[in-house]
Amino acid sequence: NGAKYASLYTKNKIISENIKYNQKIKNKLIKALLINTKNANCFNSNGYEGLVHLAKHLSKELTLKASRAEDGVEDIIKSNEILFACTGVIGEPYPTEKIKKQIPYLVEKLKKNQNKHIWVKAANAIMTTDLKPKLACEKCKIGQKDIKIYGVAKGSGMIAPNMGTMLAFIFTDADISNSILKDLLKRNVDTTFNAITVDSDTSTNDMVSIFSTGTAKNSKIYNLLDPKLINFNKSLKKVMLNLSKQIVKDGEGAKKFLTINVTKAKNNKIAKNIAFSIANSPLVKTAVAGKDPNWGRIIMAIGKSGEHIILKKLNIKIGEFGVIENGDLISNYNEEVIKEYMEWESCEFNIEINMGEASFTAYTCDFTKDYIDINADYRN
Amino acid sequence: NGAKYASLYTKNKIISENIKYNQKIKNKLIKALLINTKNANCFNSNGYEGLVHLAKHLSKELTLKASRAEDGVEDIIKSNEILFACTGVIGEPYPTEKIKKQIPYLVEKLKKNQNKHIWVKAANAIMTTDLKPKLACEKCKIGQKDIKIYGVAKGSGMIAPNMGTMLAFIFTDADISNSILKDLLKRNVDTTFNAITVDSDTSTNDMVSIFSTGTAKNSKIYNLLDPKLINFNKSLKKVMLNLSKQIVKDGEGAKKFLTINVTKAKNNKIAKNIAFSIANSPLVKTAVAGKDPNWGRIIMAIGKSGEHIILKKLNIKIGEFGVIENGDLISNYNEEVIKEYMEWESCEFNIEINMGEASFTAYTCDFTKDYIDINADYRN
Repeated sequence: NGAKYASLYTKNKIISENIKYNQKIKNKLIKALLINTKNANCFNSNGYEGLVHLAKHLSKELTLKASRAEDGVEDIIKSNEILFACTGVIGEPYPTEKIKKQIPYLVEKLKKNQNKHIWVKAANAIMTTDLKPKLACEKCKIGQKDIKIYGVAKGSGMIAPNMGTMLAFIFTDADISNSILKDLLKRNVDTTFNAITVDSDTSTNDMVSIFSTGTAKNSKIYNLLDPKLINFNKSLKKVMLNLSKQIVKDGEGAKKFLTINVTKAKNNKIAKNIAFSIANSPLVKTAVAGKDPNWGRIIMAIGKSGEHIILKKLNIKIGEFGVIENGDLISNYNEEVIKEYMEWESCEFNIEINMGEASFTAYTCDFTKDYIDINADYRN
Repeated sequence: NGAKYASLYTKNKIISENIKYNQKIKNKLIKALLINTKNANCFNSNGYEGLVHLAKHLSKELTLKASRAEDGVEDIIKSNEILFACTGVIGEPYPTEKIKKQIPYLVEKLKKNQNKHIWVKAANAIMTTDLKPKLACEKCKIGQKDIKIYGVAKGSGMIAPNMGTMLAFIFTDADISNSILKDLLKRNVDTTFNAITVDSDTSTNDMVSIFSTGTAKNSKIYNLLDPKLINFNKSLKKVMLNLSKQIVKDGEGAKKFLTINVTKAKNNKIAKNIAFSIANSPLVKTAVAGKDPNWGRIIMAIGKSGEHIILKKLNIKIGEFGVIENGDLISNYNEEVIKEYMEWESCEFNIEINMGEASFTAYTCDFTKDYIDINADYRN
């Protein structure tokens, strides 16, 4: 009967045609989501009408398919019950006819695959320059009912060779209203998908959606404060954070995963600003690529955030290894040990501001020659 | 008798010890400037007292030297008539004694070299990872008097392998007061040194100083609006812009020089924000490295600036070649011609917002594998 849903879209001021299209959908239930790669459907003149056309065609095909269903259940799929996600090159004409031709084939395959490795297939299907499919899954309870949450995502950061976009789709059998789904997404997105950066570039097509089919038949949830949501919210955050980390780990050219914890800041905004000033610094990221515990660059990046800090209160650790304590290099600083630590696939920078109680964690990857290769030499 | 002077310092919230030292100098005339490389004198515990010690020692040596001068002119150089500039690794102890030992030798050389290629020598002496010395020179008139302005600078962007810093020093024989010198620097710095970016990282040690010896004996200038300053201001801006461009051209790993003109914006802040959003985008800069006229990335970067723009008014040219007109790809768009244009050493992106009259030009370089090499593999 369709899924309740909510979506969050890119904050880029120039947005793709499919995001404009999705924003106009006022229907409360969604029955289909069509994702295409290779073309961002952004900054072209035919993309919006292309989607209108595809939605009509897809709704017809899906309705036909449903009417032939072996289980005898008939269903009419309307064109305003379809969402679109696009990723690929910005500024090229949208290949409406090419996609239209594939629709009967896609619809035909739907039933066959529906129960067999469906999430692995979905995660694989939306990959572009991703090297690995990205999946996450959690179970929890709402009241007495068992609930599942599945998520798939794509993205090598904000971007890929000329193709862009972080896409993530989360599916649950819980029954939760659209407005609560939206609030749940918003509540968790700042510490998950909005806490990652590969290269500081924000796509025109970023999109995170959650769909709730309601087949778990849990009792009604009236608002965001409902205690029945506590476990669901935790599990949802786990799925979102898991997918976010997978995106960074598969960042273009990335060899290392970097976690930047900024703690005890005066407020959340300051903590986030400092964390991203470090996470987006090309100098910090190239040092990580070179396994160089070059903490002077961390200092530089903290300073360039523009936030007021009191040096005498600053503590820095790389992993568990102390570097700066109360604004001074610690007396038994051992660079060799930290160099060895930085050989690992994952590193942590722990920055303690000691001017308050707020914290923020950003996730990023190192900055390698492969990133330049992928992005400079793509068309040659 | 010393030079009048003015300095502008980094906006990084963490500043080096020499900048703290210079900021405390209240003397109206400066007689010496000591510049060291390899050590940033930042975030250490001995650097400030090191400078106090060096200043005393240097003033003594310079005074001795002056008293032995062949021209019979004696001069006492006081320790508060000395400025310091430092560039190098952040966080290491300042090598006061090592520098102190060199002072007699440096002072001895002063006279010999004073008239022979002095600016070339100065520009060469302050290089770190710079591949080329950076000099600029302009002549102008104040009243009837001929005035010279010389400038030297160093910096491969904000940074170098673990070493940092953009330093620029400008010298003129004009006689201009400290406060007017400061105003002149401020007036011109936003469109010159503050209009360049190599990698968006801001050093803890950036410093631009101007020194005015007054030997040209021009008539007194009473304020910034003095019409006698018009030509001087123009020439000063030329020197500053010239040095700024040289820094970007010598940016780490840079193969191409990129000028980004944002015009007809609602106000200067918006124009600057959009220009830097493009100039700092790793995706735009890698595309330039790949000679790829990937205008979709320019669109992305304009959008991620967060500034409101009206797409239907947007025009984009690469060099003189039209790409976007009134928000649409131009009908006779010829990518091959633009690809050929991007083979050049210098490229221009012209972004016309058409929502006002303000403009800003940013200068940057491409982002190449050599940048990663220089910054990742430095210590290995």
